[in-house]
Amino acid sequence: MFITFEGGEGCGKSTHSKLLKKYLKNKGYKVILTFEPGGTEVGRILRKALLKGPRLVSRYSELFLFAADRSEHVESVIKPGLKACMIVISDRFVDSTAAYQIAGRGLPKDLVSEMNRISSGGLMPDLTFLLDIPPKIGVARGTKSTKKDKFESENMAFHKRIRKAYLRIAKLEPKRIKVISSIMSAGEVQGIIRRTIDEKLGNKG
Amino acid sequence: MFITFEGGEGCGKSTHSKLLKKYLKNKGYKVILTFEPGGTEVGRILRKALLKGPRLVSRYSELFLFAADRSEHVESVIKPGLKACMIVISDRFVDSTAAYQIAGRGLPKDLVSEMNRISSGGLMPDLTFLLDIPPKIGVARGTKSTKKDKFESENMAFHKRIRKAYLRIAKLEPKRIKVISSIMSAGEVQGIIRRTIDEKLGNKG
Repeated sequence: MFITFEGGEGCGKSTHSKLLKKYLKNKGYKVILTFEPGGTEVGRILRKALLKGPRLVSRYSELFLFAADRSEHVESVIKPGLKACMIVISDRFVDSTAAYQIAGRGLPKDLVSEMNRISSGGLMPDLTFLLDIPPKIGVARGTKSTKKDKFESENMAFHKRIRKAYLRIAKLEPKRIKVISSIMSAGEVQGIIRRTIDEKLGNKG
Repeated sequence: MFITFEGGEGCGKSTHSKLLKKYLKNKGYKVILTFEPGGTEVGRILRKALLKGPRLVSRYSELFLFAADRSEHVESVIKPGLKACMIVISDRFVDSTAAYQIAGRGLPKDLVSEMNRISSGGLMPDLTFLLDIPPKIGVARGTKSTKKDKFESENMAFHKRIRKAYLRIAKLEPKRIKVISSIMSAGEVQGIIRRTIDEKLGNKG
């Protein structure tokens, strides 16, 4: 089973993916928790370049770097994990690229979709949690601890476009994507995540 | 004017592009000498990852990294140089990706061509020098000084495929690509390069 977490800055993806990993491990499942960009050895180099590195001049280079990161991530982490019958949880996946590169950066939809298709090797999540939060709240939450990265330091209009794009994607794929309002307490959000997973795994008890 | 140097390992691209730069500068031209991968700030990070970094598992990630590197290189170095009426010389460009990724790595031709088209922003060299050398001689030359990188340490069959692919590309575009046998002395090779350039620039004297 392949589960992804999606959402804008400060929506709680990282917190909730960790909590879910713990929950599933306690239930006896073998779980890999991974993330994009950066879930591989070369990915760690790319993550640094993408989030903190030099300003990119070309409008395409960011997309290509994310594609390289994903391609490597899918083939060396996600697919091997799934083959070994583990539950793989990824903090971000193809929906991030769709939201950030099309709505955020304004790249052509066809190109981004094609890059997503190739870089994912056709693999799609069985279940995606979209943690939805108004950008004003999310961005403030997300930057409490560390210095802002390239995406966090984008303006509010950018973050609003990302949110809208995510909600549009979720409407197109309601079976795969579960939208959860992340304004609620972490306990409430995690409760919904766990109930959803339990239903999917067919063991509600 | 945009000039590129192409060829397999140890063919003398770097030596001859430097000599050509000097020659043109002495003639009074403004010249930029640049290279791929690595001709930009983010490119230097990518060059390291591509040539010396961790082994890549996905067959596509290398292509995407080269595309990101080129995209950035074209927009931040090559196009600005040409706009400023300088002569831009690049050690490697799209023909490298075609030869190495299609013939070398076995990727689909359509995908590689499409990535070349997007990453180059449609820009093609006015003149390309293909320095042709039998792989046995080239690889031995190329690795005299430094530790072998990922491409240099490929087997002889790989290098032979690269050479064939380059010659095939040159046949398709004889007007753009000047093939020079790099078995000759550096002086002889540079002589041909200079005569070719002088003719192009219309000042034979």
